[in-house]
Amino acid sequence: MKNSIGNNVSITLFGESHGDAIGAVLDGIAPGITVDREFIAKQLNLRKPIGEISTPRKEADNFRILSGVFEGKTTGTPICIIIPNENTISKDYSATRFLARPGHADYTAFSKYHGFEDYRGGGHFSGRVTAAIVATGAIAISALQKKGIKIGTHISRCAGINDVEFTDLETQIDSLNNKDFAVIDDSVKEKMIENILAAKKEGDSVGGILETVITGVPVGVGEPWFDSIESMLSHALFSIPAVKGVEFGDGFAIVDKRGSSANDEFFVENGVVKSNTNNNGGINGGISNGMPIIFRSAVKPTPTIHIKQSTIDFEKNENSELLSAGRHDPCIVHRARVVVDSITAIVLCDILSTRFGTDWLAN
Amino acid sequence: MKNSIGNNVSITLFGESHGDAIGAVLDGIAPGITVDREFIAKQLNLRKPIGEISTPRKEADNFRILSGVFEGKTTGTPICIIIPNENTISKDYSATRFLARPGHADYTAFSKYHGFEDYRGGGHFSGRVTAAIVATGAIAISALQKKGIKIGTHISRCAGINDVEFTDLETQIDSLNNKDFAVIDDSVKEKMIENILAAKKEGDSVGGILETVITGVPVGVGEPWFDSIESMLSHALFSIPAVKGVEFGDGFAIVDKRGSSANDEFFVENGVVKSNTNNNGGINGGISNGMPIIFRSAVKPTPTIHIKQSTIDFEKNENSELLSAGRHDPCIVHRARVVVDSITAIVLCDILSTRFGTDWLAN
Amino acid sequence: MKNSIGNNVSITLFGESHGDAIGAVLDGIAPGITVDREFIAKQLNLRKPIGEISTPRKEADNFRILSGVFEGKTTGTPICIIIPNENTISKDYSATRFLARPGHADYTAFSKYHGFEDYRGGGHFSGRVTAAIVATGAIAISALQKKGIKIGTHISRCAGINDVEFTDLETQIDSLNNKDFAVIDDSVKEKMIENILAAKKEGDSVGGILETVITGVPVGVGEPWFDSIESMLSHALFSIPAVKGVEFGDGFAIVDKRGSSANDEFFVENGVVKSNTNNNGGINGGISNGMPIIFRSAVKPTPTIHIKQSTIDFEKNENSELLSAGRHDPCIVHRARVVVDSITAIVLCDILSTRFGTDWLAN
Amino acid sequence: MKNSIGNNVSITLFGESHGDAIGAVLDGIAPGITVDREFIAKQLNLRKPIGEISTPRKEADNFRILSGVFEGKTTGTPICIIIPNENTISKDYSATRFLARPGHADYTAFSKYHGFEDYRGGGHFSGRVTAAIVATGAIAISALQKKGIKIGTHISRCAGINDVEFTDLETQIDSLNNKDFAVIDDSVKEKMIENILAAKKEGDSVGGILETVITGVPVGVGEPWFDSIESMLSHALFSIPAVKGVEFGDGFAIVDKRGSSANDEFFVENGVVKSNTNNNGGINGGISNGMPIIFRSAVKPTPTIHIKQSTIDFEKNENSELLSAGRHDPCIVHRARVVVDSITAIVLCDILSTRFGTDWLAN
Repeated sequence: MKNSIGNNVSITLFGESHGDAIGAVLDGIAPGITVDREFIAKQLNLRKPIGEISTPRKEADNFRILSGVFEGKTTGTPICIIIPNENTISKDYSATRFLARPGHADYTAFSKYHGFEDYRGGGHFSGRVTAAIVATGAIAISALQKKGIKIGTHISRCAGINDVEFTDLETQIDSLNNKDFAVIDDSVKEKMIENILAAKKEGDSVGGILETVITGVPVGVGEPWFDSIESMLSHALFSIPAVKGVEFGDGFAIVDKRGSSANDEFFVENGVVKSNTNNNGGINGGISNGMPIIFRSAVKPTPTIHIKQSTIDFEKNENSELLSAGRHDPCIVHRARVVVDSITAIVLCDILSTRFGTDWLAN
Repeated sequence: MKNSIGNNVSITLFGESHGDAIGAVLDGIAPGITVDREFIAKQLNLRKPIGEISTPRKEADNFRILSGVFEGKTTGTPICIIIPNENTISKDYSATRFLARPGHADYTAFSKYHGFEDYRGGGHFSGRVTAAIVATGAIAISALQKKGIKIGTHISRCAGINDVEFTDLETQIDSLNNKDFAVIDDSVKEKMIENILAAKKEGDSVGGILETVITGVPVGVGEPWFDSIESMLSHALFSIPAVKGVEFGDGFAIVDKRGSSANDEFFVENGVVKSNTNNNGGINGGISNGMPIIFRSAVKPTPTIHIKQSTIDFEKNENSELLSAGRHDPCIVHRARVVVDSITAIVLCDILSTRFGTDWLAN
Repeated sequence: MKNSIGNNVSITLFGESHGDAIGAVLDGIAPGITVDREFIAKQLNLRKPIGEISTPRKEADNFRILSGVFEGKTTGTPICIIIPNENTISKDYSATRFLARPGHADYTAFSKYHGFEDYRGGGHFSGRVTAAIVATGAIAISALQKKGIKIGTHISRCAGINDVEFTDLETQIDSLNNKDFAVIDDSVKEKMIENILAAKKEGDSVGGILETVITGVPVGVGEPWFDSIESMLSHALFSIPAVKGVEFGDGFAIVDKRGSSANDEFFVENGVVKSNTNNNGGINGGISNGMPIIFRSAVKPTPTIHIKQSTIDFEKNENSELLSAGRHDPCIVHRARVVVDSITAIVLCDILSTRFGTDWLAN
Repeated sequence: MKNSIGNNVSITLFGESHGDAIGAVLDGIAPGITVDREFIAKQLNLRKPIGEISTPRKEADNFRILSGVFEGKTTGTPICIIIPNENTISKDYSATRFLARPGHADYTAFSKYHGFEDYRGGGHFSGRVTAAIVATGAIAISALQKKGIKIGTHISRCAGINDVEFTDLETQIDSLNNKDFAVIDDSVKEKMIENILAAKKEGDSVGGILETVITGVPVGVGEPWFDSIESMLSHALFSIPAVKGVEFGDGFAIVDKRGSSANDEFFVENGVVKSNTNNNGGINGGISNGMPIIFRSAVKPTPTIHIKQSTIDFEKNENSELLSAGRHDPCIVHRARVVVDSITAIVLCDILSTRFGTDWLAN
């Protein structure tokens, strides 16, 4: 399916960095969900570059909802949202057209598309396309909120600095969703930014880890084997450019535990099943157990840097060098946060609609 | 799709731990691939429990190929392989039927299937079902070998002990694929087993990390966004019971690098494009760049332990306790290895067939 | 997807006419549906050859349910049913191996699978494989019945003879489902059989039309555009060997009506919406309108005949002649009936589960 | 998948009759295919209303290609084309909002979407959406032409009048593709139009049959069972509003033949395999045999008529009457022709890409 994902609720992406517009079609979402244009705009703002730590390319993100919304609510038919590319600089690419930017998809795209790819600014592989995930994802987030399901992501590590851990999920999720640099402990923000700017000063870039929590998912959602919650979410998360690792619950750390401490012991409290620990991240056998779903995504440092790199000219198939000029982000971790939330929301709507049917999200 | 995965080459799983048989249907594989029954048996052997460090349940794994193979070769039509369950102990489950084994899918399966699930031995959620992945995956591995594509996995960490890193991929892959406890440096095996047995002695279990390398994948394979190689592989890998984390290339470690060291600089050597490092695990923008594809899967400690645990009776919705008797593995990392190889091979056949068409694997 | 169909309830087929077994995996069906082995056997009997008008190959159809059924009910996990091939005659195919039987898939299969196909008795293309549709479809039929949804098919035309039209749906459907030669007016049966035998006597074969009615489908089921009820059903129906036409409601006859008589005018009767006519076959815009769903499938005459035919030797790529010996059916219309019912039931379970969620069928 | 179809080449539809724009995303098409804007415009013109026999709503169909085309060629990434709705009349729908137009999807859409559907002008169910199929389909048609594959459709019957049959496929296909009222024998056009106008005069409408021929499809394309060419094409064809029947080759007429005349006898001529007749429409066992693929689609008379009809008010659930005003087509058969060609081309690109890989269409 290439640029589509989802069984019952699906998203299809299109667009290139320097084309007319990027966009997405969100299909299968329940009818009757309120579509709040201001909320979409707010979500898009969370993805926008901020201040010194981001690219100077500022896009207005004047999204247009072409279909699927009527009188302020979803109709149940496909929602197409497009976002024009307005701040493209039509620079001359001829000098670097065939130079593979290390860490980017230039060489692989050329190999796959035989040179017909739109190479300007990364083309279809540009992080720019994620704006369409955010715009449509905002509707999925709204749908989930109505059912008491919340998604929150914080920058648990960035440029070598850790944020604190979640202590009070509900409150902290709400708080995070209003921050453009999503850390639980705002005092670490300054250190992270300091390190980002230090890298930037050297023409370099940094990465980080995004930790996501979902609360309110009913027990018994997800499928065995290939449509496990982990499978469905990781499939989507690894589609986000720069994500190189995904782990649920304790993730890689669980391997050094013994079963006796890795297992989450269940108990009943006021009639509700919970577990003492949540090392499995709210998922057993691929299916939700009622505890918060927790996962982390590793975001690599932005590949575009202003430092001379060895590389190849893939047309001539010979060695070359590259010093990128142009606009770039020394860090995209904070911007990727809302992309993670958005695609997570879409996948979750899919999983829930599969389990409970089309209308559940709107009832 | 629940128990199926794949677009052009797909696998569908079925079966329960204590049912008649488990099995799989592998569809879309090219016609004309030699099906070596001994190789399938060998692969199934690699999944079998070994010695003291595994469950005493020994299954003969007398697989039957019901379809799709004719005169020793694939026909191009669906291959169904079933493996009878022969060594099931029909013990009395009535005492523990409604006790949720921590770390297992008992409670979530009950919630999802309303008590109609076959709960004996984990039912459809049992690791036993992975034998069907191994049997069909053997055919996918054979197909890839013919095209010069090799897959090798080692236990890079187990019970707190690390294996060495790959130095000579081709040789080490071949060597690993003949070991029933797949470490590169055999001297670490003893320490790992020692630690496994120490845990076993206490009724406990351990986990580990499997590191997989794929060589020989052509440049330009994979799709942008949702069918990225990372997305496709992680989807499948997270379907394997006990996998809680997947990372490509440097994975989570890449977040502490700067772009200048995380980027893999390309060069041409004897006309072939390579990179100095392989922090991106052979994948840029979701598409293969010709370098080895590298990923790691975190395998949690086996949830079944012989230590008393707090839990719930989910029928009565009240607190309870559980002390598992029965057979169990103190470690499944070494057994999961061939499952990872097998599902990786199937997904890779799918990705390659999408790019090059049905017949490519057999030509 | 090749040998699989369905989004939320899916079936995957496997097997060849002269292999070990044919079978199917039915996935996604709700847990808790009673699986009646006698009903499955009864349905398989409806597909069996009868008397003089069918092939002398009599298969016992000793089906085995390998998975997904526990204590007599569906578990919600994949149901694999296999049916051994027991009455295969291992004749020598060497004389006719490369002769394309006209109307059969010999030449196309050879072209597609490069000669690796199991050619014996039509291999994977054999109508024999439909037994697996019938066995799994019986479970889907049971699920639907519980929700008050009935499917009935009659031979509306065979060997040039018409059956009467439906007058009392509920009663006639029940009656048809107990007949091995499904005509509403039993008096036409004799004439049909007479004509079938006349053709048989000349080594020839005949075809016919199957008309299917579904009652009890709730209003508002189906999807716009590509998952319209017509699209979903026709996709499955055209998979049945020998089906060359599918029409809904008035079908091809509607083209000669004017809109004023083709439109079905709605009215309310005792609070229930109905229409005066049902030219649209219970479907508007791809979605059920509460009236019976009606469609017809054209079944071509069995291609195997005992008359000499011109053809090619596709290995030598030269002209040749063929006189089939072997067992064959002078008519398969009556046997195809239960295949139509079965695949219809499976597709309908899929459509309903998409709309109402996994559990709806079992509640 | 709802509004998407296709495995390797897919189309996703969106939009409503009176919304901002309708459009489609075509994904998976090979890179390097020339995109001729004039050809797209020409194809859209073939769908436009013509003269007296069509609706007076004239849309400029000023399509915009938002993505996937670069320097005049396909890039290999998703192509989004949108077509603004410019000639919508914002009439007051309050009087008829809840009156079900017989033959339309008003009542079924209301039932499915609980009243949240955009009901204006049929909303998402409007034939207007097919313009997006035509615009993207034009690219698929161009791709096929490059490979020597041609698609042609004629109005084989309309308003009770028959066109002649194909005699010289290649020439007639080319000729048809330049006609806005596609009949082989232009002398029947006048009679058809006369009958259309006669119906129009009475406020009524007429239907017809479209017969499609595809030449140049290689042997061995298509899949057994559920992805048979018939299954794939019928799935798409039945998505076109007003199509109520689809038949291949001889279709329903084949049921009255005997096997000896229904079978197409093969022969070799100049090394090429052909058949004496083509009753199977170029398809055996779901797979192409090298003969032209032939099928017919039954198009019902336009449901919108200017005659008073009985119906229901579905909000009040009571009987009512309806006399449609507004613009309408007394016949859409001639306009549906290019929609059939377009969706056929897209499905065929999918089938071919599955068989031969992504790039085949562009090589």
